[in-house]
Parts: sequence; C-alpha cells; structure tokens
Amino acid sequence: MTSTDSEVPGMTTHRIEALTDGIFAVAMTLLVLNLKLPQGGVEEVEADLLGLITGQSHVFSNYAMSFLLAAVFWIIHHQQSHVIKRTDRNHLWLNILILMFVSLIPFSTSLINDYHDDWMASIFFGMNMFILGSLFYINWDYATRNHRLVALNLDPRRIAVGKRRSAVTPIVSLLAMALVFVDVSISSFAYLLIPLILFHPIFRYDPSAPEKR
Amino acid sequence: MTSTDSEVPGMTTHRIEALTDGIFAVAMTLLVLNLKLPQGGVEEVEADLLGLITGQSHVFSNYAMSFLLAAVFWIIHHQQSHVIKRTDRNHLWLNILILMFVSLIPFSTSLINDYHDDWMASIFFGMNMFILGSLFYINWDYATRNHRLVALNLDPRRIAVGKRRSAVTPIVSLLAMALVFVDVSISSFAYLLIPLILFHPIFRYDPSAPEKR
Amino acid sequence: MTSTDSEVPGMTTHRIEALTDGIFAVAMTLLVLNLKLPQGGVEEVEADLLGLITGQSHVFSNYAMSFLLAAVFWIIHHQQSHVIKRTDRNHLWLNILILMFVSLIPFSTSLINDYHDDWMASIFFGMNMFILGSLFYINWDYATRNHRLVALNLDPRRIAVGKRRSAVTPIVSLLAMALVFVDVSISSFAYLLIPLILFHPIFRYDPSAPEKR
Amino acid sequence: MTSTDSEVPGMTTHRIEALTDGIFAVAMTLLVLNLKLPQGGVEEVEADLLGLITGQSHVFSNYAMSFLLAAVFWIIHHQQSHVIKRTDRNHLWLNILILMFVSLIPFSTSLINDYHDDWMASIFFGMNMFILGSLFYINWDYATRNHRLVALNLDPRRIAVGKRRSAVTPIVSLLAMALVFVDVSISSFAYLLIPLILFHPIFRYDPSAPEKR
Repeated sequence: MTSTDSEVPGMTTHRIEALTDGIFAVAMTLLVLNLKLPQGGVEEVEADLLGLITGQSHVFSNYAMSFLLAAVFWIIHHQQSHVIKRTDRNHLWLNILILMFVSLIPFSTSLINDYHDDWMASIFFGMNMFILGSLFYINWDYATRNHRLVALNLDPRRIAVGKRRSAVTPIVSLLAMALVFVDVSISSFAYLLIPLILFHPIFRYDPSAPEKR
Repeated sequence: MTSTDSEVPGMTTHRIEALTDGIFAVAMTLLVLNLKLPQGGVEEVEADLLGLITGQSHVFSNYAMSFLLAAVFWIIHHQQSHVIKRTDRNHLWLNILILMFVSLIPFSTSLINDYHDDWMASIFFGMNMFILGSLFYINWDYATRNHRLVALNLDPRRIAVGKRRSAVTPIVSLLAMALVFVDVSISSFAYLLIPLILFHPIFRYDPSAPEKR
Repeated sequence: MTSTDSEVPGMTTHRIEALTDGIFAVAMTLLVLNLKLPQGGVEEVEADLLGLITGQSHVFSNYAMSFLLAAVFWIIHHQQSHVIKRTDRNHLWLNILILMFVSLIPFSTSLINDYHDDWMASIFFGMNMFILGSLFYINWDYATRNHRLVALNLDPRRIAVGKRRSAVTPIVSLLAMALVFVDVSISSFAYLLIPLILFHPIFRYDPSAPEKR
Repeated sequence: MTSTDSEVPGMTTHRIEALTDGIFAVAMTLLVLNLKLPQGGVEEVEADLLGLITGQSHVFSNYAMSFLLAAVFWIIHHQQSHVIKRTDRNHLWLNILILMFVSLIPFSTSLINDYHDDWMASIFFGMNMFILGSLFYINWDYATRNHRLVALNLDPRRIAVGKRRSAVTPIVSLLAMALVFVDVSISSFAYLLIPLILFHPIFRYDPSAPEKR
C-alpha cells in the first residue's frame, strides 16, 4: 500500500480532535440523563426524597465512575494525539470506532444502573471499557510502529510508556469482568485501580531518566 | 447576481465548520438514546438480560450502521470543506440543509429500530441518507463549477474524484430503498457497500497519476 | 462607568463564540427529540407507519421551521460577532440571555407540536422568537452605538444595514403572533417571510454603493 | 514531587478548555429537557395550556436560574483559565471534577422542579452549587499559590481579587441552604445575590488602582 493509497485527502488530526472533543463532551454530559429517581416527577410521591436518593446511591456512584473513566480515555486520547502528527485511512477509522464506543458509555452505564445485580450488565459494561481500551492500545501501536504517524525522532521510551499506559484499561477491564463471577457488586471497584495504577512512575515518561532500552 | 449579492458578510467557512463539527458530534452521540431495552429500568424484569439484549440485536447493529454512515458523511464534509475556500449565500444554506438532515439521523434510526419489519421505516431511513448524500453532491458541484468557491488552480481530476465520491451514498441509498421491496431485512446491508466502494482506487485522488482528462 | 468597570477580565469575544457555537449545535440537534410518533416504540402498533408519519406532518414541518429559524439567528450572531471586536459586562450578559432563549427553542417547538391547535402555544413560540430577535437588535445597537465595541472606522452604512437586518425577526414574530388571532394554523407560515425579506437588497451591505447617509 | 512527576504529557490548558466549553454548552442546553408540562404530549389534554404553563412557573424560573448560575461558573472558568498558563496532574483532575459537577446541574435542577416543596431537593441543588464553587476556589488557590501555574509577574492583587470572586458562590450557596430551614420557597432567591455581589468594585481587578498589599 503506497502512501497515496492510505492518505485521506482533506483530513487532518486537528479535524479528528474537534469531533473527538465534541463527542466526549456530549457523551459525558448525557450520563446525567441516567440519573432518574423512581417515579421521579410524579408529584404525589413527595414522601421521602432522601430515601429515594440514598436508595439510588449506586446510580450516583456509577455516574461518577463512568464520568471519570471517560475522562481517563479522553486524557489518553490527547496524550496520543499530541504526538501523532499525521493521519491515514486506518488511523481515521480506528478513531471513529473509538468514538462509537465512547458514545456507547451512557447506555452501558444505564445497564449497570437498571440491572445492578445482573452479571450480564456488568459484563456488557466491562466489554465496552475493554474494547475501548484495546482500541486505544491498537491505535498507539499502529501510529508508532516504525514511527508511521509520529515524528521520526520520537523517543522510543516515550512510545514504550504510551504502550504500557494504554494497556492498563483493557487489562483492568478484564479483571473487573472476572470479578463479576466472584461477586457482581465488587466488580465495579476494580475500575478504581486504573487511576491508582497510572500514578505509578513506570507509567510516566521522564525524558531526563537514563536511557535503558 | 454580483459577488456582493451572494456574499454573506461575516461568514467564513471556518464558522460553518465549527457548527458542523458540533452538530455531527451531538447527532452521533444522541444515537445512543435509541438504545433502549423493552421495559428497561423496571426493576422487576431482572429475568433474562442476555435474552433482552440479543432480542434487540437489530437495535445495536442499527446504532453501529448509523454511527458509521454519519462518520462517512462527516469525512465527506471535511474533504469538501478542505478545498472550499470561500462561502456564499447558496453554499451557506446548502450547508444548513445538510445539517438539518444530519440532525434527523437519530430519528430515522429510531424508526428502523421500532418498526424494523416495516418497509416504510426503511424507506424513510433511505430517504434521509439519499437526500443527505445528494445535498453533498450538489454542494460539491456548486462549489467547484467554474471553480466558484475553490482555488483556481485546483486539479480538475480532484474535482472529478470528489464528484464520484459524493455520488456513492445517494446511489447506494437508492439501491437500499429498492431492496426494501425485495426483503426489508436485507435492505440495511446495502449501506455496507458504501465504505467498500469508497476503497476502490477510482474514488481516490492520486496527484502523481498521469493526467488523462 | 469607566472602561475598567465594565471590562470582564479574561473574557474575549472568541470565548463567547465557542460557547455560542456549542449551544446552537446542541439546541438545533435536540430538536430531533421532539420527533416522536404516537406510541412510537410500542411493537404492537406495527399497523400503519405511513399514516402515523403523515398524521404527524406538522411535527416535521415544525422541526424544519425551528431548525431554519435557529440557523437564521446563528447567521445573525456571526454577522454581528464578526465586527464586534471587544466585549464588556453588558455585552457578555446580553449574549448569555441570547443563549438562554436559543436553548429554549426545542421546548417552544415541542409546545407547538403537542398543542398545535392552541393559540397559547403559538404565542409562546412567537414570544421566544420575538425576545430572541429583540435581544439581537439590542446587542447590535449596544455594540455599535458610538462604536462602543466595534472598530472606529466601521462603515456607518454597515451599522445601519445590521440594524435593519436584526429588526426583521422581532417584527415578523409580532406579525406571526397577531395572525394567531386570525387563524392558528396559518401563523407559522409568517416565519417563512424572514428569509424572503432578508434577501431584499436593502438588507445587504454593499461597500461599493454610493454613500447616502 | 518533581515537575516531571506532576506533568501530564500532551495535555495543555487549551485542550481542557475545548472539553470545558463543550460540557458547559451541553449541560446548559440539556436544562431545556427539564421543561415538561404535566401530561405534555397527550393530545386530549388540550384544555388549558395557559394554566399548565403558569402552574409550572417555578420550572421556568428554575431553568433561568440554573442557566444563569452555569453561565456565572463558565465566566469564572474563563477568567481563571485566562491566566493559568500551565497544567499539571492535580489541576487536570480538579478540572475534571469541576466538569462532573457542571454535568450534574440538569439533574439537580430537575430535583428542585419535581420536588419543589421538599427541603431535601433544595439542599441537593445547594450542595451541587457549593461543591462546584468550592472546586473553583481550590482550583484558583492551587494554580496561583507560589505562582505555580501562572506567570511569575502576575499581579498579586489580581490573585486576591480572583480568590474573593470565587469565594462568592460557595458562600451564597451555604446561605441558600441555611434559608431552606427557614422557608424552602425563598431559598432559591438567595442565588440572585451572586451576580449582585460580583458587581461590587471589590470583586473587580483594577490595574490602575494604587497597590495596597
């Protein structure tokens, strides 16, 4: 495949970023539509709002979890697109697939809200995160292999750190899905590992560190 | 009509692109609101979530299809706007019409979700895609005729390839609508042809190819 | 009031435009959520989709009307912001009020959908358009008076044309509201006058025309 | 913690602003979905639309209040980000938390719509505003302490004014929550104080004023 074959005329990484920021913003804000109290809006059920809210506490923690996971993916996206200087047909469609699974997050979240004791709902949510994480891993691998879409002088250690970083979400998602078969209710907590793990120094690129590889 | 007549003061192609990216992002993300399980949210129906999801498999494939078709149109939009350097009243309103039919996609998709055995729903969806595709064809034709809104030195082969490319979606949409009268359930598969066809070299602009026309 | 008093530190017209484009894009796309067939989604009512759609034809024409009116306001916004170079506290809050009534358009449209024979719904819709149009008129008047927020050398004829242009929507909205008391169903057609009127040369700024004022 | 530790590679304040503008635009526009008339859409209830609308007047005033409060936060965000030149891990996550509570505004507003006599709903709304306001205060304090993320020559008076400004919303929110226990229906009016207070000169940075601190 020659470079002409895989080039997408008129498409720049800047364009992809504009659509990406828009879809992330809408998907993250649409999560709020999942926050619904039972019979909310029916005026008669004035009864016990505090009870209704605390009874739906898993809905609020799912909102926070999904919002923060989406934010993690948004950060990964920008860390990747910061060094990806060119685009081609495959990269473009990988990104559109990524956006398709970002858009799906509000639905996956509504499943774990409505069916919170059901292992299937947690598997569906986990698959959404696993596929999304894997697509980011593939995207980084594709863009950096032989410096295909990145600067030729990009530090190989930076490529390695980026790969390690994008492997975290799919691996933790697999773990969360495995935990479903132990106890559905603890499965969600696994996702809390993602920010904790990413804080570890081996997931950080330090240009001043002695070159080892 | 003099150039003053058709000019829209204060309007640049950059402005149109900002609104366009926004509307595409919202329309593509609103597709997720079509994903609804029957009686979803009613706590008692804990029963068989896997069955509910697989029973709604057409809803998920329609989500993917509409998302990818919207992405195809978004790519066509950016390929066109990349070379369209000026705007005028007609071009502006053509673009607003385009955005009106982009916004309509979530509704057309909800129709083929809810009435998936009904030929009328598939025709409605097909008309949405046909009109949208035709508007892009008209937009390209209008902007490039006599190099009206493009650079004077724009390669005529590029104009021809752009015309061919924007003809693909309306033609495939007509085909999909014709298939409705054969079998409603296979009609949707026709849209899969769009990315396949666009991969063919005659839909690609190769500046290094020998000039033939 | 000194210039320090009315300045909003850190706020530029560019910022306001980013929020404006976003809110216009979301409001225009949310109009699609008003498109709902009676009992849509209930699988049993497979019956007569064509009948359902044609029975809701006013909903589709209202969708188109509101989308195009929003587009008219978006164009007016960009024509104004193209020459408005500075911002101040009053201008900023005028713009936020404008955005509040832009956001209201999907609700006003849902009213004329659901209560299409009710004069009150048409008056509500008309008031939304009248207030929005008036705010644009006030915005232009405020920004251009004594060249407050525009370039000192801005052609006074351009200011006059802009004033005339932004007077069209509030005046036509008043007319549409008056027509409600003649016949509710014809009132909506009045809004079609807006694009027609704006096509007339007196609403166009022609820098080469002989200066008369 | 060295600067390498807290840096987020590939993340700029510009990126954060793009997501922020998007989320503010969507959240502010989603407020419109809270505007629903009782049995709205049911054709039979043609009866008394004017009565329905006036009976829901608190819903409309809550829409305006939430929209304007969101606008106040958006203005604060841009005033802060105008002088914040760098970002780091803490600043990034503070901003994501801010966006999470911006996204929550449509839900909090729906609570005070549906449960308008319930003190709990007003407390929930007040907590949303209080947390949001406090996060902005913390964000400003974090960014300006020792000129961590701002220019070294940033006028200390500007830092002080910014601190004072961002303290207004959390303090007024506390007051509004206290008023809930006096009378639920007057609590909302407290938020009207925010724009009034911010008009006072001590909340304005005047570079020409004699330096006092």
